[in-house]
Amino acid sequence: MFITKFAIPDIIFGHGAILSLAQCARRVGARRILLVSDKGLEAAGWVERVIDILESDGLEVVYFNNVRPNPRDYQVHEGAEVYARERCDVIIALGGGSSMDAAKGVGTIAGNGGRIRDYEGANRIMRPLPPMILIPSTAGSGSDTTQYCIITDVERQVKMSIISRSLVPNISIIDPDLLLTKSRGLILSSAIDALAHAVESYVSKLASPFTDLHSSNAIKLIIENIKPAAADRNIDALERLSIASTSAGMAFSNAGLGSLHALAHSLGGMYDIMHGMVHPVLLPSVMRFNMHACARKMGVIGRLILGDASRSDENAAQAGVDKLEELFNDLGVNTHLRQLLPDQSNLAGICRMATRDACHLTNPRDAQWRDLLSICEEAW
Amino acid sequence: MFITKFAIPDIIFGHGAILSLAQCARRVGARRILLVSDKGLEAAGWVERVIDILESDGLEVVYFNNVRPNPRDYQVHEGAEVYARERCDVIIALGGGSSMDAAKGVGTIAGNGGRIRDYEGANRIMRPLPPMILIPSTAGSGSDTTQYCIITDVERQVKMSIISRSLVPNISIIDPDLLLTKSRGLILSSAIDALAHAVESYVSKLASPFTDLHSSNAIKLIIENIKPAAADRNIDALERLSIASTSAGMAFSNAGLGSLHALAHSLGGMYDIMHGMVHPVLLPSVMRFNMHACARKMGVIGRLILGDASRSDENAAQAGVDKLEELFNDLGVNTHLRQLLPDQSNLAGICRMATRDACHLTNPRDAQWRDLLSICEEAW
Repeated sequence: MFITKFAIPDIIFGHGAILSLAQCARRVGARRILLVSDKGLEAAGWVERVIDILESDGLEVVYFNNVRPNPRDYQVHEGAEVYARERCDVIIALGGGSSMDAAKGVGTIAGNGGRIRDYEGANRIMRPLPPMILIPSTAGSGSDTTQYCIITDVERQVKMSIISRSLVPNISIIDPDLLLTKSRGLILSSAIDALAHAVESYVSKLASPFTDLHSSNAIKLIIENIKPAAADRNIDALERLSIASTSAGMAFSNAGLGSLHALAHSLGGMYDIMHGMVHPVLLPSVMRFNMHACARKMGVIGRLILGDASRSDENAAQAGVDKLEELFNDLGVNTHLRQLLPDQSNLAGICRMATRDACHLTNPRDAQWRDLLSICEEAW
Repeated sequence: MFITKFAIPDIIFGHGAILSLAQCARRVGARRILLVSDKGLEAAGWVERVIDILESDGLEVVYFNNVRPNPRDYQVHEGAEVYARERCDVIIALGGGSSMDAAKGVGTIAGNGGRIRDYEGANRIMRPLPPMILIPSTAGSGSDTTQYCIITDVERQVKMSIISRSLVPNISIIDPDLLLTKSRGLILSSAIDALAHAVESYVSKLASPFTDLHSSNAIKLIIENIKPAAADRNIDALERLSIASTSAGMAFSNAGLGSLHALAHSLGGMYDIMHGMVHPVLLPSVMRFNMHACARKMGVIGRLILGDASRSDENAAQAGVDKLEELFNDLGVNTHLRQLLPDQSNLAGICRMATRDACHLTNPRDAQWRDLLSICEEAW
């Protein structure tokens, strides 16, 4: 007995999907578009390609690229000024979670005024954003599918979780070809971010049969495809990682996340660590902490990781986490918190701050800041 | 390598979800609502309940109930006149596929003018409909989730398939409590309609990994829950049938259907047969006709029906269809076309007309009208 909501954008998925961009922009009423992207996508030629597609169709483009990983509040405000000054009517973002979240922040201010910190938390955005079209260049953040937007408040050194139905874009255009120009490291950290979304949403307090379907699908696809995708950018494996990231986005947007993401936001706010680097470090410890609060579902996750349907819940759950640690080690990503932080001096403060993050509320096991500290110490 | 689209409404699902109706109506800008429903739901007390929920919140309601199974073009035109004359701003439908499709027809005319037959086929609706909120009272048609609308053209004796992104409603409110007042027969025919949606979309030419996830989920849930739901209206089984019907709707709205639905529309246009009665008669024969054109997927379907993961594709596909026939016989539904039609005199015409239905285009195996005739003869 439950009531649940499930909302996603219109999705256009596949190789060459980006060619439908101008038609999509017209469908949402575009004449003069604010395009948000970054220098990495300029260097890879994608920004020029997108501007070409739009301008060839008679659409005007204003380009904004003052975005960086862990996008800042002042960048959002600057983008919103450009949007207003240039009299734009639609926002398109091309990039990873940072560009897409920056664009969502710009849209929030464009539609609602004020400062971005006014909207921190859940359901604080009261008026609609301008029409938004998001084009992810990584298979990880899921921002193109979700009602989440993460912006760093520079003054407070906090990554704010802003969560609202209004942040679901109108259209998400997912073209796996964009992944071909990404580094191995970025493919890995993005895929592990998506895996963390899938695992946390699957065991979230707000999970539903609709989100479970997508989170379990994502876990299976990521476990099967992360190695071949990272090894040689195998296009089929990249496509399946894109499907997984999209499925994980549909799941966590509607089910919420957990203490891992609360900690990752807190760490990222204090130390400006790249978001995807935190998950292989903390995911196994958070899974062990949650294990008995959601034994059946942790068993399902374990069987998906192991590719072995025959094990009992408890056995699969334990062995699954061990296997996940092995996988992270094989992939050569950081698996200890000491590799990311200079020392433990701020850990207690980080854990206290994490308990105030909206993601913390849906963790399957209630956790105090001292529990989070134990998790960080286990992962140190 | 494929490009695919995936669009669904915002979904609110669960026992008591109907209580969120007034808030949803306000979110889409309602002041004066056209409520479309029928006498069955009046008798069960649901129409009064819905009007209460809306009026208690200060919303005005204009009620329209001239709808019947296999809704007619003239009923759609009448509803559109009421909508315009009463200066309504939002449409809410409460009912099965007939009421919801009638409401979609009304919305199409309200937003686009003309006659409903102007929009027959795919992507013929150019302007948006008024905001639409659909509340299904059966777990079958999926109309609350889909871009489909089926209206009978009385003059031509044709059930027209109207398919457009614009027909996806803004919000679908799915409350399994509504199923408690339905007859065993209606629960069965609705569930088998949803099963047909799931099977046809799973093997459709336009199926994608996103739709496959939902169609296979629906097949599994319907096979597991149809008997307990029909036996004593077990509320958990009914809830799972609702989830299945919603998943099947998400799948077929985006993947399309096949020759079974083309035939069902053609039969329903000529003989005014209740839509859900056709599927147990024709589904096994259509599956056998398609079997070799999609052997791997028919194997998956077979294993889902049999609940046996160990069989080979070919063995599972064959045995699955046999098992499905057994299930239909156990449930006591009609399984022969001779039980629905007076004689075979119109079969050839029905099959010719079916090849012109939009659903026929996505059938996995190309079929001529004579192939459809053989299917009907096999099922006679």
